Amino acid sequence: MQFDYTPKVKEMQGRLLAFFEQHIYPNERRYLDEIRSNREAGNAWVATRVIEELKPLAREAGLWNLFLPRSTRAPEGLSNLEYAPLCEIMGRVPWSPEVFNCSAPDTGNMETLERYASEALKDRWLEPLLRGDIRSAFLMTEPAVASSDATNIACSIERDGDQYVINGTKWWSSGAGDPRCKVYIVMGKSSPDAPRHAQQSMIVVPADTPGISVKRPLSVYGYDDAPHGHMEIELRNVRVPVSNLLLGEGRGFEIAQGRLGPGRIHHCMRSIGAAERALELMCTRSLERTAFGKPIGEQGVTQERIAQARCEIEMTRLLTLKAAYMMDTVGNKAARAEIAMIKVVAPNMALQVLDWAIQVHGAAGVSDDFPLAYAWANQRTLRLADGPDEVHRNAIARLELNRYRQMQAV
Amino acid sequence: MQFDYTPKVKEMQGRLLAFFEQHIYPNERRYLDEIRSNREAGNAWVATRVIEELKPLAREAGLWNLFLPRSTRAPEGLSNLEYAPLCEIMGRVPWSPEVFNCSAPDTGNMETLERYASEALKDRWLEPLLRGDIRSAFLMTEPAVASSDATNIACSIERDGDQYVINGTKWWSSGAGDPRCKVYIVMGKSSPDAPRHAQQSMIVVPADTPGISVKRPLSVYGYDDAPHGHMEIELRNVRVPVSNLLLGEGRGFEIAQGRLGPGRIHHCMRSIGAAERALELMCTRSLERTAFGKPIGEQGVTQERIAQARCEIEMTRLLTLKAAYMMDTVGNKAARAEIAMIKVVAPNMALQVLDWAIQVHGAAGVSDDFPLAYAWANQRTLRLADGPDEVHRNAIARLELNRYRQMQAV
Amino acid sequence: MQFDYTPKVKEMQGRLLAFFEQHIYPNERRYLDEIRSNREAGNAWVATRVIEELKPLAREAGLWNLFLPRSTRAPEGLSNLEYAPLCEIMGRVPWSPEVFNCSAPDTGNMETLERYASEALKDRWLEPLLRGDIRSAFLMTEPAVASSDATNIACSIERDGDQYVINGTKWWSSGAGDPRCKVYIVMGKSSPDAPRHAQQSMIVVPADTPGISVKRPLSVYGYDDAPHGHMEIELRNVRVPVSNLLLGEGRGFEIAQGRLGPGRIHHCMRSIGAAERALELMCTRSLERTAFGKPIGEQGVTQERIAQARCEIEMTRLLTLKAAYMMDTVGNKAARAEIAMIKVVAPNMALQVLDWAIQVHGAAGVSDDFPLAYAWANQRTLRLADGPDEVHRNAIARLELNRYRQMQAV
Amino acid sequence: MQFDYTPKVKEMQGRLLAFFEQHIYPNERRYLDEIRSNREAGNAWVATRVIEELKPLAREAGLWNLFLPRSTRAPEGLSNLEYAPLCEIMGRVPWSPEVFNCSAPDTGNMETLERYASEALKDRWLEPLLRGDIRSAFLMTEPAVASSDATNIACSIERDGDQYVINGTKWWSSGAGDPRCKVYIVMGKSSPDAPRHAQQSMIVVPADTPGISVKRPLSVYGYDDAPHGHMEIELRNVRVPVSNLLLGEGRGFEIAQGRLGPGRIHHCMRSIGAAERALELMCTRSLERTAFGKPIGEQGVTQERIAQARCEIEMTRLLTLKAAYMMDTVGNKAARAEIAMIKVVAPNMALQVLDWAIQVHGAAGVSDDFPLAYAWANQRTLRLADGPDEVHRNAIARLELNRYRQMQAV
Repeated sequence: MQFDYTPKVKEMQGRLLAFFEQHIYPNERRYLDEIRSNREAGNAWVATRVIEELKPLAREAGLWNLFLPRSTRAPEGLSNLEYAPLCEIMGRVPWSPEVFNCSAPDTGNMETLERYASEALKDRWLEPLLRGDIRSAFLMTEPAVASSDATNIACSIERDGDQYVINGTKWWSSGAGDPRCKVYIVMGKSSPDAPRHAQQSMIVVPADTPGISVKRPLSVYGYDDAPHGHMEIELRNVRVPVSNLLLGEGRGFEIAQGRLGPGRIHHCMRSIGAAERALELMCTRSLERTAFGKPIGEQGVTQERIAQARCEIEMTRLLTLKAAYMMDTVGNKAARAEIAMIKVVAPNMALQVLDWAIQVHGAAGVSDDFPLAYAWANQRTLRLADGPDEVHRNAIARLELNRYRQMQAV
Repeated sequence: MQFDYTPKVKEMQGRLLAFFEQHIYPNERRYLDEIRSNREAGNAWVATRVIEELKPLAREAGLWNLFLPRSTRAPEGLSNLEYAPLCEIMGRVPWSPEVFNCSAPDTGNMETLERYASEALKDRWLEPLLRGDIRSAFLMTEPAVASSDATNIACSIERDGDQYVINGTKWWSSGAGDPRCKVYIVMGKSSPDAPRHAQQSMIVVPADTPGISVKRPLSVYGYDDAPHGHMEIELRNVRVPVSNLLLGEGRGFEIAQGRLGPGRIHHCMRSIGAAERALELMCTRSLERTAFGKPIGEQGVTQERIAQARCEIEMTRLLTLKAAYMMDTVGNKAARAEIAMIKVVAPNMALQVLDWAIQVHGAAGVSDDFPLAYAWANQRTLRLADGPDEVHRNAIARLELNRYRQMQAV
Repeated sequence: MQFDYTPKVKEMQGRLLAFFEQHIYPNERRYLDEIRSNREAGNAWVATRVIEELKPLAREAGLWNLFLPRSTRAPEGLSNLEYAPLCEIMGRVPWSPEVFNCSAPDTGNMETLERYASEALKDRWLEPLLRGDIRSAFLMTEPAVASSDATNIACSIERDGDQYVINGTKWWSSGAGDPRCKVYIVMGKSSPDAPRHAQQSMIVVPADTPGISVKRPLSVYGYDDAPHGHMEIELRNVRVPVSNLLLGEGRGFEIAQGRLGPGRIHHCMRSIGAAERALELMCTRSLERTAFGKPIGEQGVTQERIAQARCEIEMTRLLTLKAAYMMDTVGNKAARAEIAMIKVVAPNMALQVLDWAIQVHGAAGVSDDFPLAYAWANQRTLRLADGPDEVHRNAIARLELNRYRQMQAV
Repeated sequence: MQFDYTPKVKEMQGRLLAFFEQHIYPNERRYLDEIRSNREAGNAWVATRVIEELKPLAREAGLWNLFLPRSTRAPEGLSNLEYAPLCEIMGRVPWSPEVFNCSAPDTGNMETLERYASEALKDRWLEPLLRGDIRSAFLMTEPAVASSDATNIACSIERDGDQYVINGTKWWSSGAGDPRCKVYIVMGKSSPDAPRHAQQSMIVVPADTPGISVKRPLSVYGYDDAPHGHMEIELRNVRVPVSNLLLGEGRGFEIAQGRLGPGRIHHCMRSIGAAERALELMCTRSLERTAFGKPIGEQGVTQERIAQARCEIEMTRLLTLKAAYMMDTVGNKAARAEIAMIKVVAPNMALQVLDWAIQVHGAAGVSDDFPLAYAWANQRTLRLADGPDEVHRNAIARLELNRYRQMQAV
């Protein structure tokens, strides 16, 4: 057992932090301003210049596609354990991952394509995604059913000759608001008569296929997250070649399992980064402002919260790193309890720390003068995305109880 | 001791609920749509037609200015205990209080004018406010200081002949975004050399006085609350007649005490209404959606939260009603511990219930397809407005400890 | 709605508080010492002299059988709402209720006999209980089954001619350790083939009936609660006349419902008294002790807890009083949601306040130099006795959800 | 970074677990019974035979003095990181550490002697402690002052010729109830005029020195912890040679710092073991008992708690291991934030898990039929021992805030 980052990781952390100091933090206000002025000019759904300017710099700095596992297309790929502390840093500024081509849902989509797509599909979609030329969306959740139970997913994928015909309504298709979003991975029901967990498939659908209409953006608290966005999308008789189906009919759950592990680790590491940033702002602000005769940071209740925040951040980070380590060493399946655990604890922890930080900032905290309220809204979705807390807690409990069921059976 | 509402109150509750069924709930979507279309047309900062249409109906239905304490101008005024359950109902829909001319900060400003303004000021400002012709704002919080400690308020009010000259920057001036907002009550420092709690004054300032500029709206978790708004306002050499000062120089704290009691009760009752609505939506939704083989409402964790929500709503309501009763019977000062208690517990309770309700709604809960996320953002500000939780908890503790200090002194 | 106690109640509170000042608080140490010296002398399972001395004084002071509802045998009986604030005071000292003949489980047993027993049984058992000459126990919980689901209760009650024959093992039979405990009310299964909720009966069993053996006392944390005790009792072919059966075969649940309402209110009011005492000790101690340069009571974290304790005590008391009011006005059945609510919130609240008080006392808090640790252990059992929290929360949720189920059905 | 235990540690874990299966678990009931029968026979303050029988077996099994850091007297000593997972296992049964000569406060006292005592003192006291022939106590806390602030410690240590004369009253001197307890380390004030943190010294005092009287055992939630015990001890003109002073006059704080780090790690690891045991019992019981139609373990609320328990145990263990790692690699001082963090989180976590486990066991949970209630009482003291939570949270917050104070100063 050993708790230090490797020299390689430390070096990359240093480089990434330097990039933040030089290019990310100084542009936080500009990013917001650019979107606001786009919105005022009538359309917030366009890519920001600030990110487009920064992407080449990140690539030059060797900070590009860091999320990539080692593979033939990514010989310099990182392990989950190596990527985790870098991903954490990106969590400090919600829009920053795109600068490094490390943003959800593209990373998950790229991994899915890498693992399960044909070479033709990879050439067509994975390559431009890796270059950061296009973006992608993952169409899973549906408005009409409790999508937390993925067997409820109703969007139909029916074979018709050498095509699949897709019909359904999806929502919370994150990233589909961006005009650069050119491809979707769609989860749907291809095999309604198969066993419960073998009814679903995943299929690659170009965003401009006839029959697709992006209906509206959904808001998260009051944020529409333009230009990224969370879209409601209707698919009416959308036809794609059968070769666009990933892995095989009825194997959607299998892909989901493979896909979700790394995606969750990434979200969790970013949650930790968001919490660290919040604690940093909380400390700074609490030393600057005085009420009732002494700085807020010297008041007992503030100190209690700072201490509790530090404890919970440290513990969450360690569990997330351990989950990453297990994914690297024993595989995603053996690590599924740990992945479920961090899926629950990381956003809840971040929400608590953010809320304390907001409280220390007074009214300013709920506004966009500080990045706290937006980060909170962002984290709040993570208690629902990829399955709500309740589903993951049940999974953890089942794994725990199974150990005793097996004993009783013996 | 007796826990039933009076027949008078029950009758008014019935009338108000009927009005909600007929006029408020059916217009919830329209209200949002109207603001969105105003925004898309380039200006969200205009009064909505829907509220203007409903105001005369409320007045006809005898549901107007219900918050008013009995007085010469309001012979039919209600006690705090009578108003409380009506105010709770209005809390179910955040924009509804304006329909009944019962919205903050107008109610608090009307009470302040009623108690402390000259007849001339009442004629000029109170009358149109009571008629719902204009709106008002309360300029207290400042960006540069920890306003939780009101002695930090720095905006200066200097006498110059028969005028006061006001200089300062205020923010979170709620309601000042509305074009109908014609008058401000401003808190500032008139007597910097007086004892700590006698330095502040309150003064009436017409919104169109030269030297005033409304700089920008602040957002609350992504919501700008247009057309109401929370504005940053600069006052540069703003001059008003000396007769605009309320009560006397250095008596700002005294007014604040008188003003805040009822205002807090109102906020708390609305918080309870918001929580009741959330619980209602939570129950309904949980029965409609099925996951993992049974309705969400029949799953243990959901039931635990429903039960806990019901318990906490009931308890918070009773404490709020008791505080109202004490204000009516022994006065705001004797009721100050109870007022501080509900100030802390009501929004925290509502936030918890809303968050549980959001979780049951899945991703839909964080969007504006349901009124939950907006209500949450709204409630979150109430842990800061009129003093943060921490300040009120300290006040409660001091009152509690004083009982023992006095014993020890004996 | 009206939040003041009646003059009658205030007068009784005054009298009871005076009795506490004069007779209860000064004997707290003596009570513990007497039990310890009994224990050292070889037998702690004897009635204490201190309580026997105080009982006549309480009776003289008109503070006897205060729990009694108005009836022919108790023409001066009190309503639940009247008794509640008196019962709260008794909660301040765990052994004090017996002084006033108001201790569990005797009160519940007396009410059960009063409502459901024949005149002959009343003469035989109710009269000496009302005089405080004997004590009683309620034999419900069983070690072999999850008794939280009372349909699991397995102790058999079989008719054999004009007798019932009882066989089973009970535990947590509180009070059965006392040599004055002369009668049991036993819950058992008389009608195993009846519908689920009509299988159980209650029957009166003299403690000296052949076949009964009291096996051992159970401990609560490290306390054995001598001489009261929580006993494990075996019943082997215990025979009683058929006339000892209460109300009728299969009506045990019906009696349980009638019995538990008042019993729960009493427990809850005592929990509130325990919490008030804890808060009092917490305040006093926190002002006496200084650490890191100022009294503990002036440190922010302590103040936060004092404030939160005050809020939660007030709210719990109001809900409990409302439940009492409803029991008096609309009956136990209509009040069942409120009764379930206080059953959950009162002991949890008391445990929290006690734990905070213990923390302020440092190591002394966990010892018996202060009454806090014992009170905590005592309260902890109330999250299990008469049904665990989880069962009551489920009941509350079901009632809440039923309102919406009915709407949907319409 | 690497999350597996070394082969050496795994081998030792295996051996220790086997010892538990064979010798500890089968003797749990016997240990309680032996103490009860000692108590019934008139004296519980004697060493148990069961532990004396097991000690030689542990020594034979190479499971002796495992806590020892590598040193000349312990060439086979373990690092903190190696010892931690072994210590965790011992936490599963509260009395088990003594079997391995690894019980508090002896371990801390042995370390203190090893580091700071003269060779003569080591020969006299350390050697028999290492052999497990005698036991020891640490006399720190005083009844008259808030000992959480160690500068309050008032016991005087005055030089008189070649002796020190000690006067004071100590309590919570754990282990001093055992007749084998032959030596104390006493903290007292030797230099009242020195700077605040240089007034205290530590001194070795034989338990049979004239002037010492052990007054009484203190109880912990009803448990007296015989034969170990937590004693109140009076010291009146107790004289020891000057050579018994450790390290030097006024260096008591320095020793405390050195002493407390490892001691805290040990407590925390045992807390984790206690929590693991509780979770194990919770799972087992919840599968065995059925209520309302299904096993308690299949009910949602139970599953939620099992999941949450698993998450919190994992996180706490990782943070504790990291603290151990830091102590081993960068030293106790650099690790002081981490040590303070685990000091807060470990017992709080264990208390929560134990409380959930108790709730699943129903009334049985609060009794001594299961080891849960006792373990809870035991853990509860750890939120106070070696400084209450509040003090450690303040220390963590100060360290955190200092980072920002330094930045501001730059």
